[in-house]
Amino acid sequence: MGKYSHIQEEAYEANMQLPKLGLVLFTFGNVSAVDRSLGVFAIKPSGVPYEDLSPDKMVIVDFDANTVEGSFRPSSDTKTHTVLYKHWEKIGGIVHTHSTYATAWAQSQRDIPIFGTTHADYNTVDIPCAAPMSDDMIKGNYEYETGFQILNCFKDRGLSYEEVEMILVGNHAPFTWGKNAAKAVHNSAVLEFIAQTSLLTEQINPSAPRLKDSIRQKHYERKHGPDSYYGQA
Amino acid sequence: MGKYSHIQEEAYEANMQLPKLGLVLFTFGNVSAVDRSLGVFAIKPSGVPYEDLSPDKMVIVDFDANTVEGSFRPSSDTKTHTVLYKHWEKIGGIVHTHSTYATAWAQSQRDIPIFGTTHADYNTVDIPCAAPMSDDMIKGNYEYETGFQILNCFKDRGLSYEEVEMILVGNHAPFTWGKNAAKAVHNSAVLEFIAQTSLLTEQINPSAPRLKDSIRQKHYERKHGPDSYYGQA
Amino acid sequence: MGKYSHIQEEAYEANMQLPKLGLVLFTFGNVSAVDRSLGVFAIKPSGVPYEDLSPDKMVIVDFDANTVEGSFRPSSDTKTHTVLYKHWEKIGGIVHTHSTYATAWAQSQRDIPIFGTTHADYNTVDIPCAAPMSDDMIKGNYEYETGFQILNCFKDRGLSYEEVEMILVGNHAPFTWGKNAAKAVHNSAVLEFIAQTSLLTEQINPSAPRLKDSIRQKHYERKHGPDSYYGQA
Amino acid sequence: MGKYSHIQEEAYEANMQLPKLGLVLFTFGNVSAVDRSLGVFAIKPSGVPYEDLSPDKMVIVDFDANTVEGSFRPSSDTKTHTVLYKHWEKIGGIVHTHSTYATAWAQSQRDIPIFGTTHADYNTVDIPCAAPMSDDMIKGNYEYETGFQILNCFKDRGLSYEEVEMILVGNHAPFTWGKNAAKAVHNSAVLEFIAQTSLLTEQINPSAPRLKDSIRQKHYERKHGPDSYYGQA
Repeated sequence: MGKYSHIQEEAYEANMQLPKLGLVLFTFGNVSAVDRSLGVFAIKPSGVPYEDLSPDKMVIVDFDANTVEGSFRPSSDTKTHTVLYKHWEKIGGIVHTHSTYATAWAQSQRDIPIFGTTHADYNTVDIPCAAPMSDDMIKGNYEYETGFQILNCFKDRGLSYEEVEMILVGNHAPFTWGKNAAKAVHNSAVLEFIAQTSLLTEQINPSAPRLKDSIRQKHYERKHGPDSYYGQA
Repeated sequence: MGKYSHIQEEAYEANMQLPKLGLVLFTFGNVSAVDRSLGVFAIKPSGVPYEDLSPDKMVIVDFDANTVEGSFRPSSDTKTHTVLYKHWEKIGGIVHTHSTYATAWAQSQRDIPIFGTTHADYNTVDIPCAAPMSDDMIKGNYEYETGFQILNCFKDRGLSYEEVEMILVGNHAPFTWGKNAAKAVHNSAVLEFIAQTSLLTEQINPSAPRLKDSIRQKHYERKHGPDSYYGQA
Repeated sequence: MGKYSHIQEEAYEANMQLPKLGLVLFTFGNVSAVDRSLGVFAIKPSGVPYEDLSPDKMVIVDFDANTVEGSFRPSSDTKTHTVLYKHWEKIGGIVHTHSTYATAWAQSQRDIPIFGTTHADYNTVDIPCAAPMSDDMIKGNYEYETGFQILNCFKDRGLSYEEVEMILVGNHAPFTWGKNAAKAVHNSAVLEFIAQTSLLTEQINPSAPRLKDSIRQKHYERKHGPDSYYGQA
Repeated sequence: MGKYSHIQEEAYEANMQLPKLGLVLFTFGNVSAVDRSLGVFAIKPSGVPYEDLSPDKMVIVDFDANTVEGSFRPSSDTKTHTVLYKHWEKIGGIVHTHSTYATAWAQSQRDIPIFGTTHADYNTVDIPCAAPMSDDMIKGNYEYETGFQILNCFKDRGLSYEEVEMILVGNHAPFTWGKNAAKAVHNSAVLEFIAQTSLLTEQINPSAPRLKDSIRQKHYERKHGPDSYYGQA
């Protein structure tokens, strides 16, 4: 058992959930799991098919994007993960996918409006879509800047990464996170569900109203509030 | 064999049909089965994944929402089930899901128009969408009031719960019921089918007419009428 | 081996293809296979789940809709099959489903426009949608009249049932046929594919033109013409 | 081991991926694999179901469309493959499917706009849709002319077949290619994904802008440029 095998195992299990949940085609996705005491995270190697993965192939990377252990090149999105781990100190796992409906919203450069209680069970705002990056950011350190594009979007809108665990990057695709890798994957599947049902809602009723404040608050508190009564204690 | 094992088994089997029929993501759904002579029903525990369920984990609850037997917390929607069992004396099972298309119609706050004979085989009216609750109801006993929102919608529209075994709750998602839990699950799958085909019908022909009265009546009688000749005698 | 076991086996195998091909929910479909020398056909019993079917449960019915052999009640659509077998002497199998996209077109009461070569490989016209029946026909012998509605639609439009092996019945759902039950099921799956891609085509380009005559003819001849070179000789 | 068994095996394996990836209904697709030193390619036999295929059933054809080895008739699209292999000297495999979304775009006679980075990872232009053929071409050697329609579309638009490995043929369906048969199949699945997400993008935001130049270039270079850092070295 290596020093990093616990996060390699966690990252591996979470990565393998992506094809099972129908969230990826080929290698269009990656999950990482962090160990903050060691200051590193385990992430999927770049371009390796899911069926060829194993825990020991997960690459160990530090918060400056240096490979600490592993014979494979880490995911091309590694620098984005690095930025999020560095600045958002309470997240334990990050997921990036190109899931169909969430990607379509990202490509459309629109926030996903909050129409229903499924959405409100997770967060009480429209799911943010960060604007495409400036040409300078793109020409520079692209994946690194993608991380800052996400951070800045949350800062500009006054959002908390602990309350809203998902974002769309304009023109690109979604990122989600959570207290651990499994929870981050869960959030990716929920985001895809919300992305699909919100589109359908607009198709059924182009003037469908957003969820009213009282319901938003109720559902949020039911799951996250001090008197939460959802799930097992 | 416990005193309640027959309804625990019935509720378990019916709950396990939800993922098989593609009606739930994660734990977004619950089924209950009632024993009216004992005055209790068995319902899915809250937030437990389907793959971890077993009949003995089904929670036994009475019509005032008190847990009678079981070590798990019952579904967060339990009070809604309670209200429906209490007021609609002939139903034996209730299902709540967030199935994709039915949820989208609920979020759009529209009734599902009756366009075809598949729909008419089940009921002869537009599938009702109850209005979102008032702020007072939401701030109060939310799930309990959801039950009354359903009862009131049926009363206001003069609908019979024995003829129309499904409803959308505005902003939220569908509920269905039936003479037993299996039939209630069957109705959830049919509702999802109707929700999808009705949307497609409007997309193909935005001015598609509702089903005319003569066909509605014929199909209904074929299945439910005194000279019914559908299925085995 | 009974006198009818060859068509019972044929009808059984064809019926079992419907859920495999994703064309039916629960029991929303039926297939029959005819033996013209014996003047009977084998058809699915009414309301029996696919997983409970076996060849010997297929009901044997004559062209006047009398049950000749079988302990189950035949499909509620049996009279429609009877009419088609009686009047269209070269068909060997019939399928009725409520497949999602074909049903949506039937509910929208529109013919499916011919947009592409996949469609043209099968027939060179818009797929006809028969008008909903008159109130008199509906109040009368409904399923029997459904058969005549189909025959009349083909007669009125000058279509050949040997060239066009599929129809939508307005407000209801599709029927397909073929030289045998397997070919009729094949046609149901193709119709569903055409129904989906035609809707998508209109969504991508609302003014998409119909396939031009020269291509229609070429593709049809490639498959059905005297110098056909599609498939094995 | 026959002289051609390496390309028969390659073509067989690639053909069997089509149903697995959900790209074909029945026999609506074919893959070929070339051996340029031998001047032949192996292609799927016409009209044979995927479950009945085996490597030895792949037909060996030369660049003038003569069958060199094999007891089956080759795919009806063989001449199109021939033209592409003859004129595009660096491709090793070709795929033709009628996959749902790509076929709908082909039927709509529209190029697929480039909206996102998934698309840009593969090519930096709208995916071209070749115009339907002229009546003369259709009446002539149809499948042969389909190949020229593809070549001419690329020539007229100044596209490189090494950079853009996919096309839609108007009214018909997609063709893709690559350095080998497996890569060509990969491209078919990616095209289907792009076709679906681009349609959804337009549905979510009818005025969604095309991807801006700086991002297109960045993503392309990330995968194909001299300093590529995507996948394993």
